[in-house]
Amino acid sequence: MKQSWIEHAATSGFPLENIPFGVARIRECTAVVTRIGDTIIDLQALAQHGYLNVNADVRETLSHDSLNSFMELGKEVMRDVRAQVAKIFAAENGKLRDHAEHRAHICMTEADVTMLMPVRVGDYTDFYSSRQHATNVGKMFRDPANALLPNWLHLPVGYHGRASSIVVSGTPIRRPKGQLMPADADAPVYGASRLLDFELEMAFVIGKGNSLGEQITTGAAEDHIFGLSLFNDWSARDIQKWEYVPLGPFLGKSFASSISPWIVTLDALDPFRLDGPVQEPKVLPYLEYEGEKRFDIELEVLIQPRGGEETLVCRSNYKNMYWNMAQQLAHHTVNGCNMNVGDMCASGTISGDEEGSYGSMLEITWRGTKPVAMSDGTERKFINDGDTVIMRGVAQKDGLRISLGEVRSEVLPAL
Amino acid sequence: MKQSWIEHAATSGFPLENIPFGVARIRECTAVVTRIGDTIIDLQALAQHGYLNVNADVRETLSHDSLNSFMELGKEVMRDVRAQVAKIFAAENGKLRDHAEHRAHICMTEADVTMLMPVRVGDYTDFYSSRQHATNVGKMFRDPANALLPNWLHLPVGYHGRASSIVVSGTPIRRPKGQLMPADADAPVYGASRLLDFELEMAFVIGKGNSLGEQITTGAAEDHIFGLSLFNDWSARDIQKWEYVPLGPFLGKSFASSISPWIVTLDALDPFRLDGPVQEPKVLPYLEYEGEKRFDIELEVLIQPRGGEETLVCRSNYKNMYWNMAQQLAHHTVNGCNMNVGDMCASGTISGDEEGSYGSMLEITWRGTKPVAMSDGTERKFINDGDTVIMRGVAQKDGLRISLGEVRSEVLPAL
Repeated sequence: MKQSWIEHAATSGFPLENIPFGVARIRECTAVVTRIGDTIIDLQALAQHGYLNVNADVRETLSHDSLNSFMELGKEVMRDVRAQVAKIFAAENGKLRDHAEHRAHICMTEADVTMLMPVRVGDYTDFYSSRQHATNVGKMFRDPANALLPNWLHLPVGYHGRASSIVVSGTPIRRPKGQLMPADADAPVYGASRLLDFELEMAFVIGKGNSLGEQITTGAAEDHIFGLSLFNDWSARDIQKWEYVPLGPFLGKSFASSISPWIVTLDALDPFRLDGPVQEPKVLPYLEYEGEKRFDIELEVLIQPRGGEETLVCRSNYKNMYWNMAQQLAHHTVNGCNMNVGDMCASGTISGDEEGSYGSMLEITWRGTKPVAMSDGTERKFINDGDTVIMRGVAQKDGLRISLGEVRSEVLPAL
Repeated sequence: MKQSWIEHAATSGFPLENIPFGVARIRECTAVVTRIGDTIIDLQALAQHGYLNVNADVRETLSHDSLNSFMELGKEVMRDVRAQVAKIFAAENGKLRDHAEHRAHICMTEADVTMLMPVRVGDYTDFYSSRQHATNVGKMFRDPANALLPNWLHLPVGYHGRASSIVVSGTPIRRPKGQLMPADADAPVYGASRLLDFELEMAFVIGKGNSLGEQITTGAAEDHIFGLSLFNDWSARDIQKWEYVPLGPFLGKSFASSISPWIVTLDALDPFRLDGPVQEPKVLPYLEYEGEKRFDIELEVLIQPRGGEETLVCRSNYKNMYWNMAQQLAHHTVNGCNMNVGDMCASGTISGDEEGSYGSMLEITWRGTKPVAMSDGTERKFINDGDTVIMRGVAQKDGLRISLGEVRSEVLPAL
């Protein structure tokens, strides 16, 4: 691990090898920021004081209220900025370290800033690419002997989600109301969802678009992906169940999705690549790919009741994906669908093979039949009002830790 | 009908009572425009020359490349602009009429301008609100005796669509490729869609948003709706069929949707309101509404082979809606989902009760079993390469005609 003059624990997950991107409100302005250890670094100020050497076009994007314009400049600009930041903050470089006034203007604590939505999302797509998750859901709601639907092994199933209600970590989530069909009732009722759930997901952010009518191949896909964030695809199971046939999930999802404030670049995650799973039956040629396209990122979900302790309810891993990002993007654009900078594609719930690695309360408690014991002695079938759901992600190997940060959201009672 | 000094046929559909809004490229710039008869009126130039009296904030929005900022100013501004335009162009008002130089700068023909996408669409939702369409689809693909699914009469079924691929009338549509599952095959194949279809729809545009967590009631809904456009929800039936279970339509829709360039305000359509259909079973209280919320707008679809004549294939009416816009918007936000200015909600295919009034080739040809005879002697089961699909809409009553314009798109062969 490279050493920085910003002191931080080896376990912080934000060493000089990470250098993620986010957007913060700082002193009434917005700025593109990065993070080393617990220190937030204002890249706009870093350029203003002459440490970060970028042209006027790049510099202008560093005061925007989203990463979109910065991402639009291309990966070479992003790579140059990451490389420069790694040098400016390297242990042996005393220039900024020894200039107290500039340092005070550039380096802040998390308490000094408000992290904002990092990207302005145009379209948001949710995939369904963990085989274990699709199998669990199929077993519960359809035929246990034929849990996977016929198309599942042939294409990365996905659907369009709601972009407007994606919010950043820290934003409280209001329990949604809607139509529910109680068991054995003749007619639906109106009320607050009783089966509020999280879904543990990762999302990738488009940094380079394509024109309408043009396909993105699996080989080109990663050029279009700027980076990754943690993603909580909030789900109201009872609303979803009544509405979703035949056109798919709608209001059971669109009340909110939560993302982490840091977009971690694929470059930072490069050491954590893995070969894919064997895909049998063989996929169609447009879904074939070369190279290591899966990522080993440890994920966990915790529930913290108001005033109480965190209870770990899930340990999973982003490697539990049957379909990788390159396949998802190639499939998404096989019909010529155009991607814009800032569009997001989430993975679908990431569940592993064993109990304890399931990425939703639906699976963890098996539809509420096996409640989870909380550290305060209470139980959970789904998420209660006042609970804070926390997702964290970290890639680690040979002493290097790259954190994806966390997404943390408290559930408020229905209005 | 009010008389204008701009000469136009009584049948034009763009009298002083219409005054719709669009965006055009004019001499390398963009401007918000309206239309009287066949004359396009540059509202930015109308303000610049002092005829349209608006403050600097309003005037600034008139040079944007979408209506979003103008819509965001609120309905009072829109109403004021429509009222002023009606006066400036009234037959008895000679001020602009008699100023040839100003007139040349402000008034253009369609050939002088390029009509652009009128709105920047954030999120797009497609409903499924014509009972006859849902019944036809249910009969074809599910159980003829129970064609409507259990939720259909209780809520306006809808799903999230793709916003990025909505294009304006005149934009050619590329036949999409994708995965298809041939009948009796063991595995899917990759290829161009063979079952390319249109769906005749209307879409409403959000002019006033709501905050995340806040509901819009049926009573307030129309305050949030700026106006209506024609909407062709292109569908690749074979791609859709293989992919859509369990999460709904995705690539079978996301390759393109086409809209008309003119947004016609609800104010202009006010004389064409109708009572709703009886809704039985009774809807839940949040879906109850007062007043006339359906609109009598005659719709037609024509197919024109390259170099050939138009053949009329459908005559329907926007009144063939079971769920109205107010109910759709109240349902969409019942869970607190936030709407942004520029979001679009389409109706779903608008089919009437009789053959001849069905709004898609799927229904018109009953899955291809009853081909349509074209005026050039050929037949159509679905849409061929080189066909131009044309949708038109007009509301008429007591000599007043309000046109929705048209949406016209040629289908190009797959790449």
